[in-house]
Amino acid sequence: MRVELLTVGDELLLGDTINGNAAWLGRRLAEHGVEVTRSVVVGDEMDVIVAAVRSALERADAVITTGGLGPTYDDVTRDALAEAAGVVLVRDPALELRLHERAEAAGRELQPMAFRMAEVPKGAGLLRNSAGTAPGLRVELDGGIVYALPGVPFEMRTIMDEVVLPELAGIAGLPAVARRTLRTAGIWESVVATRLAEVEAMDGVKLAYLPDPAEVKIRITVAGADPEGRLAEVDKRVRELLGPVVYGVEDETLDRVVHRLLAERSATVAVAESLTGGLIGAELTAMPGSSATYAGGMVTYATELKHRLLGVSDVLLAEHGAVHPDVAAAMAEGVRDRLGATYGLAVTGVAGPEPQDGTPVGTVYIGVTGPGNTRTVVRPKLPVPGTGPEIRAVLRRMTVVHALELLRRELLGLDAEVETGDAREDREVRG
Amino acid sequence: MRVELLTVGDELLLGDTINGNAAWLGRRLAEHGVEVTRSVVVGDEMDVIVAAVRSALERADAVITTGGLGPTYDDVTRDALAEAAGVVLVRDPALELRLHERAEAAGRELQPMAFRMAEVPKGAGLLRNSAGTAPGLRVELDGGIVYALPGVPFEMRTIMDEVVLPELAGIAGLPAVARRTLRTAGIWESVVATRLAEVEAMDGVKLAYLPDPAEVKIRITVAGADPEGRLAEVDKRVRELLGPVVYGVEDETLDRVVHRLLAERSATVAVAESLTGGLIGAELTAMPGSSATYAGGMVTYATELKHRLLGVSDVLLAEHGAVHPDVAAAMAEGVRDRLGATYGLAVTGVAGPEPQDGTPVGTVYIGVTGPGNTRTVVRPKLPVPGTGPEIRAVLRRMTVVHALELLRRELLGLDAEVETGDAREDREVRG
Repeated sequence: MRVELLTVGDELLLGDTINGNAAWLGRRLAEHGVEVTRSVVVGDEMDVIVAAVRSALERADAVITTGGLGPTYDDVTRDALAEAAGVVLVRDPALELRLHERAEAAGRELQPMAFRMAEVPKGAGLLRNSAGTAPGLRVELDGGIVYALPGVPFEMRTIMDEVVLPELAGIAGLPAVARRTLRTAGIWESVVATRLAEVEAMDGVKLAYLPDPAEVKIRITVAGADPEGRLAEVDKRVRELLGPVVYGVEDETLDRVVHRLLAERSATVAVAESLTGGLIGAELTAMPGSSATYAGGMVTYATELKHRLLGVSDVLLAEHGAVHPDVAAAMAEGVRDRLGATYGLAVTGVAGPEPQDGTPVGTVYIGVTGPGNTRTVVRPKLPVPGTGPEIRAVLRRMTVVHALELLRRELLGLDAEVETGDAREDREVRG
Repeated sequence: MRVELLTVGDELLLGDTINGNAAWLGRRLAEHGVEVTRSVVVGDEMDVIVAAVRSALERADAVITTGGLGPTYDDVTRDALAEAAGVVLVRDPALELRLHERAEAAGRELQPMAFRMAEVPKGAGLLRNSAGTAPGLRVELDGGIVYALPGVPFEMRTIMDEVVLPELAGIAGLPAVARRTLRTAGIWESVVATRLAEVEAMDGVKLAYLPDPAEVKIRITVAGADPEGRLAEVDKRVRELLGPVVYGVEDETLDRVVHRLLAERSATVAVAESLTGGLIGAELTAMPGSSATYAGGMVTYATELKHRLLGVSDVLLAEHGAVHPDVAAAMAEGVRDRLGATYGLAVTGVAGPEPQDGTPVGTVYIGVTGPGNTRTVVRPKLPVPGTGPEIRAVLRRMTVVHALELLRRELLGLDAEVETGDAREDREVRG
């Protein structure tokens, strides 16, 4: 089963919006064994949409469109589908009633334009939208199916999960391939690839490396008979070859893993940040239920706050400045004690783009301290990826990943030494 | 001048990577008066890339491809361009030398695979890559031009800015339209649209609304004679009609505006966060130079820390819990005083997806306190956008925006009342 995506909206071509919908759809469809073979973005022009839908159906069994189902006059996906199918738009009385009800509930007056959302191409199926007003549409065309979904992400996702995916999975049957993504941190892409050479050579097995700052995801695809069974074997072998740098599977991000490990130990963590400005705390609280394992944090951005709020020795700060391994260690201990947490995690460094008091950009120290002891691990200088204003964001992200990974290793009692650096940079000289 | 984008990579179709490159390219090209008319993503298959390039050049004057220029065997864009142009790949001695030099500098051995990056379609132009190893390529084909850029974002951006954009802007000549994006916070999309009705009716003027959680960007496009001159007039009228909710232009985000306002007053801010876990601090430190205006912050996630670290009355906390207007006010004052900042900003609330101690999801209070007085403004309940696990991320983002916007208004002495809510939700009943 081949599916193409068609995203509609001038704002995407102009770059005002990033196409997160297409990425979400691609992942979700792959999980259900449905292959996205092409993804196209066009503007809010009816003729262009009509042509793009027809051309997609020449190649694929189904097309999923997103966007252009709203009430305004630049929302023309409905009109384009009617045109492509050679039918008229008709007003659906049940949808009209629903519009009235929702407007009344919100205490707002319904403008004439809103009724566009009650129109559907004659003969089209309605896809229930439990998250909003406008339903999705199903239009059969040229021997294929078009699913038209709204562009608002949570409405699109709801209709997809509740209606479209079960339908498509039913049509596609059992997937012929099995896929899994393993997540690693603190190891270079080329090292991963070298260690996994024997797996890459296996028949029917495909590996893809997806490098991010300081992380490499490994996507395993297994084809052939009993793909799920073979995937389990390949997964096992990959973990044997890589060891404990594999921290999670699929959407199991580092913050979730740390949360789970802390929860299993009935432990909490407190965080002292400087160059990351709060990003580590934000990451650790992204998940519901994080209050069980995350106590709180201090962002001691100004140097004197490291002394005043965290008790870092002012002699140490005067002698070495704020960016020093002993400062990271003292910050970790200070925040753990002051917040009454089991673990303390701290970062200090220079995010750039300019050096700070002679300390080069990319100098980052991370302190982790556990419950019984004050074992503290530190990170040397992170390699600077490229030049220019983007360094700051990348270095901050790398610092977050390294900090969480070091906490994970401390929790598991693993060797704290990791390979630092932006895994992506490595692409250049790899081979 | 019409340009199409062609992004190459299985990881994009599978949704492992979001197509940020296409968004960046669309924005950058629009700024230079070049119109992106279509954006296509295909996988790492040579035949598919060849067909996509040819089909794009039937419609457009130029095609910009990203991805597929790396060293591995699934990097096939070079091969596809040679095939499309009907030429062979030749090895470039200067590129080969550069590979050797970089490998030596990194102390790494060069693998045979790496030499793929020294190959170019015969007759192709090289686009200098000052940020990495593999250069971009310029191939003339079917009367159009293909620019092939690497997929690594900072390399792609560097080549684009240094080489491709100056060249394209030279070909395209002066832009026929002028564009500007104005940014607003704390106002609903439908209210913006209603107030700007007279502007939308102006000849040659097009408005687009780009709603985000708690923000609406307004993209103004002016066509006709002297578009820049008319744009200035339209900009002025829009600001008259909307008043001080317009906080910035183009990439001037709320954190930058707050930074500038604080710097102008030689003032600093300290932040006390709970449900946002550090996101406000992260936002305020995203920009270089933020240490001049951001002192630091406390993330008092656990309730007792609000008392212990910030001095919020324990009687108040016992009586009303942590989510209460007076708690937000006391947190703002506490963090300002303890960190010795000029301003204090604080948030407390329930990010969901589950209610907390009977307090419904979306209940958020924000305290802002200035230097001389303790004027504190609070926010009532934020409307909850939809249901499900996404609520948490959206509510946290809305809280960040509302907090920064309230600080901005405090700094400017503006009325603190803003319209709350997810501006996007409004789409449903608007008309």
